[in-house]
Amino acid sequence: MDIKHYMSDLGQRARIASRAMAKADTAAKNKALSLIAAAIRREAAALRAANELDLAAAKAAGMEAAMLDRLSLSDKAIATMAEGLEQIVSLADPIGEISNMKYRPTGIQVGQMRVPLGVIGIIYEARPNVTVDAAGLCIKSGNATILRGGSEAIHCNQALAKLVKEGLAGAGLPADAVQIVETTDRAAVGELITMPQYVDVIVPRGGKGLIARLMQEATVPMIKHLDGICHVYIDDKADLQKASDIAFNAKCHRYGTCNTMETLLVAKAIAPRILPLLAERYATQKVELRCDPVAASLLHDYAWIASATEEDWSTEYLAPVLAVKVVADMDEAIHHINQYSSKHTEAIVTEDYSRAMRFLREVDSASVMVNASTRFADGFEYGLGAEIGISNDKLHARGPVGLEGLTSLKYIVFGHGEVRQ
Amino acid sequence: MDIKHYMSDLGQRARIASRAMAKADTAAKNKALSLIAAAIRREAAALRAANELDLAAAKAAGMEAAMLDRLSLSDKAIATMAEGLEQIVSLADPIGEISNMKYRPTGIQVGQMRVPLGVIGIIYEARPNVTVDAAGLCIKSGNATILRGGSEAIHCNQALAKLVKEGLAGAGLPADAVQIVETTDRAAVGELITMPQYVDVIVPRGGKGLIARLMQEATVPMIKHLDGICHVYIDDKADLQKASDIAFNAKCHRYGTCNTMETLLVAKAIAPRILPLLAERYATQKVELRCDPVAASLLHDYAWIASATEEDWSTEYLAPVLAVKVVADMDEAIHHINQYSSKHTEAIVTEDYSRAMRFLREVDSASVMVNASTRFADGFEYGLGAEIGISNDKLHARGPVGLEGLTSLKYIVFGHGEVRQ
Repeated sequence: MDIKHYMSDLGQRARIASRAMAKADTAAKNKALSLIAAAIRREAAALRAANELDLAAAKAAGMEAAMLDRLSLSDKAIATMAEGLEQIVSLADPIGEISNMKYRPTGIQVGQMRVPLGVIGIIYEARPNVTVDAAGLCIKSGNATILRGGSEAIHCNQALAKLVKEGLAGAGLPADAVQIVETTDRAAVGELITMPQYVDVIVPRGGKGLIARLMQEATVPMIKHLDGICHVYIDDKADLQKASDIAFNAKCHRYGTCNTMETLLVAKAIAPRILPLLAERYATQKVELRCDPVAASLLHDYAWIASATEEDWSTEYLAPVLAVKVVADMDEAIHHINQYSSKHTEAIVTEDYSRAMRFLREVDSASVMVNASTRFADGFEYGLGAEIGISNDKLHARGPVGLEGLTSLKYIVFGHGEVRQ
Repeated sequence: MDIKHYMSDLGQRARIASRAMAKADTAAKNKALSLIAAAIRREAAALRAANELDLAAAKAAGMEAAMLDRLSLSDKAIATMAEGLEQIVSLADPIGEISNMKYRPTGIQVGQMRVPLGVIGIIYEARPNVTVDAAGLCIKSGNATILRGGSEAIHCNQALAKLVKEGLAGAGLPADAVQIVETTDRAAVGELITMPQYVDVIVPRGGKGLIARLMQEATVPMIKHLDGICHVYIDDKADLQKASDIAFNAKCHRYGTCNTMETLLVAKAIAPRILPLLAERYATQKVELRCDPVAASLLHDYAWIASATEEDWSTEYLAPVLAVKVVADMDEAIHHINQYSSKHTEAIVTEDYSRAMRFLREVDSASVMVNASTRFADGFEYGLGAEIGISNDKLHARGPVGLEGLTSLKYIVFGHGEVRQ
């Protein structure tokens, strides 16, 4: 197989399909999504069978348990995929939205119209549900998409792609609007990220290693999802109960997610009161606390304690481990955050209005919160309906990326025969 | 001089200054802009003297007349720079704007805050006024900037940078918020576009050659300004007077600008009536018409006529030359535009409502107009107050880029102690 030729063919088809998708009306897009959801429910047994093939191959290749878990498609996961599509049906169509039309002194009326990006390439790990979520978001936002899922899920992805194409055709939309890369050859990724003539943006989901490689090689712009080194700062004007609830939830609600707190910063004046309280709760989950000397001195009786090293301030543990530092005040906290954070999500706990406002403005991260758990940084929790990833970038989309993040604004002008003087 | 070390030092200073700029209040930013405007007026003689040094060197090096014209700084140009800054003072501060704060069922309130991008690198030709315009826009939008102007303007740029730094210091803002690259070594550009740790976005202004090179080498995201192959389509439902005025203005108002029409498309049914009318007006400006066979047959008496070749459909003439094609209908016009346009600006002339709406939606360009001259595609005309360029990109900013294009939206959350369930 000639990978270059294969990918370029996929790209050309996507580009052509993207023109039809851009002008597709809301009803057609919703019909496609509903048909796909119905097909997924109807073909649940066939999907499980395809998934069994992938699982058997993955087990034979020695895939570890956590990865196998992500790869496996239960009845519940199948139902969730179908429900996800139906949720996307219920979201407002972002395309064609006209805003800010204002008359200018020349007589023209100028504003903006929301339009699709065009062709979106998505590179992701062996999680079959992403195939359906991503296809659904791209269809609703009027884009064509090329999906390159983890090769371990290839049978399941092919089965899903067949249902997606069936749904598109049933709604009168081009089946090429959603294509999956059918080869497991890694060279396909290299092609996908260097075809700006066919692909408008790449959304990579996956490990830091993958993304670092793509950043070096891609000539197509990317909406990147990097790591989450999230902070909670407990101010000395914090409510003790809120501080304890938020710091416990932000760490212990789930360890493996990118919006989980990895470093806790505590103001010196409140540390002696809040840290022992928190330690009691963390002890129930055996959370290891990697402490700076001041925090360590306040927690000397805690069983799972260690000394923090410089490296701890920039580590994403994704585990029951937490770096803890006592700071003089909010200024030191903001300075620490702007130095070590991955600019994903940070929260302050305080009852002080002026500090809350300053924290919101001065912390340079995609999500900045007052008196809430960092775990809320999520497309569903923010009301986007669904998300294709969480962007650590500053250009274009920042934070959870939903339908709007897959669109762009063009200028439109309503004239009446005006010319430039 | 060690260019790598020099540029990395500039980058570090810019990054530090960007933190102070991000939290600078509106009054301080406006004060800096007003001080710079006053200094430019006060030091007009010194600026002209610096410009004379540049002009003398450029003449000695054999610079052509059009370039010398752009490089020269008249009294009027100096006054215009100062006025430009005062216009930026009068624009609303985009930074800190909070929008769409909505309560979620969990109790948190989620919305977005507009924030600066951080550090903006601007690469431009030998036009001293860009130094001041770009500095002004970056200051108002709370960014730090590194300016790399054409080496032929180095004396003038240094003199301007001194006044800018004076104004920043006078307003209590860091002088490093605006830095100019003081070396004319081209390697400096190579460094600037590969320092993502210090530079958040590059705005290149200049020829296609420069931008093509940057696209290959840059690891910093870019807001690119490419060529303008703009189209006007005269529909058969067009008002003849509007069609004639718009098609004449779009070509003849100025030849050298990126929003000038380069190809005229005319519906078959109206071509026999409108083309001879238009030819009379183009004849007054000796505009050469490169026609497809049908248009040529309607204009056989026209003096400055030639046959269009395939290449003409994708040529940006920037001269009194126009490609002319007769199309069957709007569908063919849209197809032609989406194939050959550089996605800058296109206009339809029609009185038909449904076609106007379809053209607006289906033409994939940064600006799409109904019954107005393409020459309106401009930051000032759109009411942005000023522009740093016109983006042909789809991600982030599309079309004229003003203050908002130099900002980004982060998510903010107002909580009351909420945790994830």
